[in-house]
Amino acid sequence: MKEVIPHWLSKQADLKPNQLALEYNGKETLSFQELAQASQSMARRLANLGVEKGSHIALLSQNNVNMIIAIHALSYLGAVAVLLNTRLSANELQFQINDAKVNLLVTSVFFSDKTEGIDVPQKKSFSELQRLPEKEVPLQNELVLNDPFTIIYTSGTTGFPKGVVHTYGNHWWSAIGSALNLGISPQDKWLTVLPLFHVSGLSTLFKSVIYGMPIYLMTSFEPEKVHEALMKNHITMISVVTVMLQRLLEQMATERYPEQLRCVLLGGGPAPKPVLEQARKKEVPVFQSYGLTETSSQIVTLSPQDAPRKIGSAGKPLVPAQLKIHDPSTRGVGEIYVKGPMVTKGYFNNPTADQKAFQTDWLKTGDLGYLDEEGFLYVVDRRNDLIISGGENIYPSEIESVVSELTGVQEVGVTNRSDDQWGEVPVAFIVKDTQNVLDEEMVQTYLKSRLASYKVPKKIYFVEQLPRNASNKLMRYKLKEWL
Amino acid sequence: MKEVIPHWLSKQADLKPNQLALEYNGKETLSFQELAQASQSMARRLANLGVEKGSHIALLSQNNVNMIIAIHALSYLGAVAVLLNTRLSANELQFQINDAKVNLLVTSVFFSDKTEGIDVPQKKSFSELQRLPEKEVPLQNELVLNDPFTIIYTSGTTGFPKGVVHTYGNHWWSAIGSALNLGISPQDKWLTVLPLFHVSGLSTLFKSVIYGMPIYLMTSFEPEKVHEALMKNHITMISVVTVMLQRLLEQMATERYPEQLRCVLLGGGPAPKPVLEQARKKEVPVFQSYGLTETSSQIVTLSPQDAPRKIGSAGKPLVPAQLKIHDPSTRGVGEIYVKGPMVTKGYFNNPTADQKAFQTDWLKTGDLGYLDEEGFLYVVDRRNDLIISGGENIYPSEIESVVSELTGVQEVGVTNRSDDQWGEVPVAFIVKDTQNVLDEEMVQTYLKSRLASYKVPKKIYFVEQLPRNASNKLMRYKLKEWL
Repeated sequence: MKEVIPHWLSKQADLKPNQLALEYNGKETLSFQELAQASQSMARRLANLGVEKGSHIALLSQNNVNMIIAIHALSYLGAVAVLLNTRLSANELQFQINDAKVNLLVTSVFFSDKTEGIDVPQKKSFSELQRLPEKEVPLQNELVLNDPFTIIYTSGTTGFPKGVVHTYGNHWWSAIGSALNLGISPQDKWLTVLPLFHVSGLSTLFKSVIYGMPIYLMTSFEPEKVHEALMKNHITMISVVTVMLQRLLEQMATERYPEQLRCVLLGGGPAPKPVLEQARKKEVPVFQSYGLTETSSQIVTLSPQDAPRKIGSAGKPLVPAQLKIHDPSTRGVGEIYVKGPMVTKGYFNNPTADQKAFQTDWLKTGDLGYLDEEGFLYVVDRRNDLIISGGENIYPSEIESVVSELTGVQEVGVTNRSDDQWGEVPVAFIVKDTQNVLDEEMVQTYLKSRLASYKVPKKIYFVEQLPRNASNKLMRYKLKEWL
Repeated sequence: MKEVIPHWLSKQADLKPNQLALEYNGKETLSFQELAQASQSMARRLANLGVEKGSHIALLSQNNVNMIIAIHALSYLGAVAVLLNTRLSANELQFQINDAKVNLLVTSVFFSDKTEGIDVPQKKSFSELQRLPEKEVPLQNELVLNDPFTIIYTSGTTGFPKGVVHTYGNHWWSAIGSALNLGISPQDKWLTVLPLFHVSGLSTLFKSVIYGMPIYLMTSFEPEKVHEALMKNHITMISVVTVMLQRLLEQMATERYPEQLRCVLLGGGPAPKPVLEQARKKEVPVFQSYGLTETSSQIVTLSPQDAPRKIGSAGKPLVPAQLKIHDPSTRGVGEIYVKGPMVTKGYFNNPTADQKAFQTDWLKTGDLGYLDEEGFLYVVDRRNDLIISGGENIYPSEIESVVSELTGVQEVGVTNRSDDQWGEVPVAFIVKDTQNVLDEEMVQTYLKSRLASYKVPKKIYFVEQLPRNASNKLMRYKLKEWL
């Protein structure tokens, strides 16, 4: 039997009409009742353009109130939101718009230049939508958990991005899994500065309407402003990626965050130990986590209580989730498989990708990891980044972790270069800090004392910055292109 | 696609192995790891008796550790637990055991006299089970949400009790709906003194393994002991029925419960205003609620914040639940319909009852109520003459059915009388046949052998005739007027 729940935003508008739902850049605010009314009104405007159940509507916007209203509006119509990364080139956008069979592209005016040449049946800016009259259509007052709701593209190892379809149920279960891990307090307020077009940011919207919890939304990550918001605005939770955590730690001199900040949810790849160490010293309650677009947000989390004795671990799978290591080596390392009702049922219109990604109802993440004797997950590396040199496996993250501990290093990324003698060898890209004292010899001398020689990068490149995606995740394949 | 989650007890044994799971009468304690091990061990003993996926195992026990272990053990085997009310007569037990096609009856030794004459394929006491060897069988490490897990009988208007089937999913969603209402705190500890054979008590077991929260289990409601536990044992939540709340309030002189007691969940019928008023004066955080066996526990709740301005209301439906008033009168009163993933999918082996109870996926509760302008529910009357006595549901038709089998009875009508101690008690009006041999004592002696004692009418009135309408239907409200 299909599971049905009442529309989550309408429910909160009924249960907590006057409760704060959204605080935008610390200024504009909306209650749940106001957010529901604005979203329903937007739904009726979209209906005027022919948007209906099953329509695919692409959204291209930085974080703002309009984007949130548009996403909820689509849920009232049963339409699917295709969330586009604002950093994509026009070519990349066109690919995703075609692949997702988009009927209408909605953009913030900020990106009108970029979308000028885009070929799509209809195109509207948020301000154009605001001027449309409302059309009286029946709105969904229930959500069928198995219905698709969002599509987010993720790059695979194969080159072409694949559209991950999330159902209402995927988002629901992700929010519930997180709640069972972190608890639910009436004081909660989540700071969302990660982009809403990534699942890590997007998922906070659904937590908001499922828990009845306000979101403090910020458009972009400016360390001073986020720091100030954390200090002053009664934030209890925030999701960040490693580089953001680093920047925030730099903002902290001797002061500590207020006690109500109870969770800094850290995603986007393994974090270097020195960063975690520093966070612990500064009493920042970091929850390390592991997740993919396909898992609708984090699926494995390490609590601050376990962190000191499990340094480097991503933790354990959430209550509704399962995890196993497929075909482990003698050292226990194998591919990470995950399963649970928050895991996507598949990619949009891509049976080949589905076949590759699933084994019965287990998702093959492509990432490598192992479990310690207590069942804590250690993510060793993303499989496609694995470097095999002279028959030895080398994991870039391991080298990066060591390099980052060297004084003078601000950031580091490691990848592989083909080599006549060894097959592959590692190479490193380093961003120096402002002291600018390092040279290649100093780095290699240091590393030789810390790593097996085959793991020491054969070449060190000093660069101005590392290639990161919109959620600040290191794109190692770009490093390879730089070579 | 069927939804699957990891086995909830195994999950907590993995996430929180050393966390307190169960504290029994303030003495015996079990961690989640110990509870999981004991339950798995019990599952292997039960396997020795042929218990397997789909077996129906009846449990007859007061609240104790064995009963909790047995319930979890059945979930490891995929067997169904039929939970028997310990106050039922042997006749009533036999009916439910037959109707539920029970393969094995497990009892605490306390009830061995009562079950002596019961006809059932196998019968074991907990202590006999403990002596069985373990049989190595595969245990369920996952729970399929659509699979049936428990059956609890509820009397209908038609006389014969019906077995309400709860799936794992029903219990899961009930626990989640409650969590989204009450929040989840790491300090939570739930005091369970309501019987585990009722869904209100049973549901706390599943909250425990879904939240990773300890239960403080008590065998019976002794006001002084419960009061003492609330004062001293770091309890944060307790479920009670009205008569219990009254007794607890009597225990309180000038003292107040500790601040951590954040929820006294009140179910089992509308509470009299003076009791609520007194609770408010004594700062007891009462959450009034409305629910049925069919809704797997409360489905509508009123928070203490709303209580003062909504006196007499049962509140609003939980986040995953919906409610509507069917065919309201001009005053807005109509039958209460509810819907949601915590609502049973139907009765065991009883398509006629299913047909009567459901309209598409709405459950027709049989209770009457109305919504005020803000959508708060007021329950006007429980379904067709339901009598609620000390939190137990009593159906007049069931008593009438038994009385009418007694030689010398021509006609009988049962209604309720208000009672200081129990809220309501049943009373009977009997028209004797021409032999005229019966007296009150004879009737009560007969009934005590056939019915749970709380169902035996507290007073028998012998009358010349019963009030019937033109189509000869008994008008029970007239009986009430006679009182």
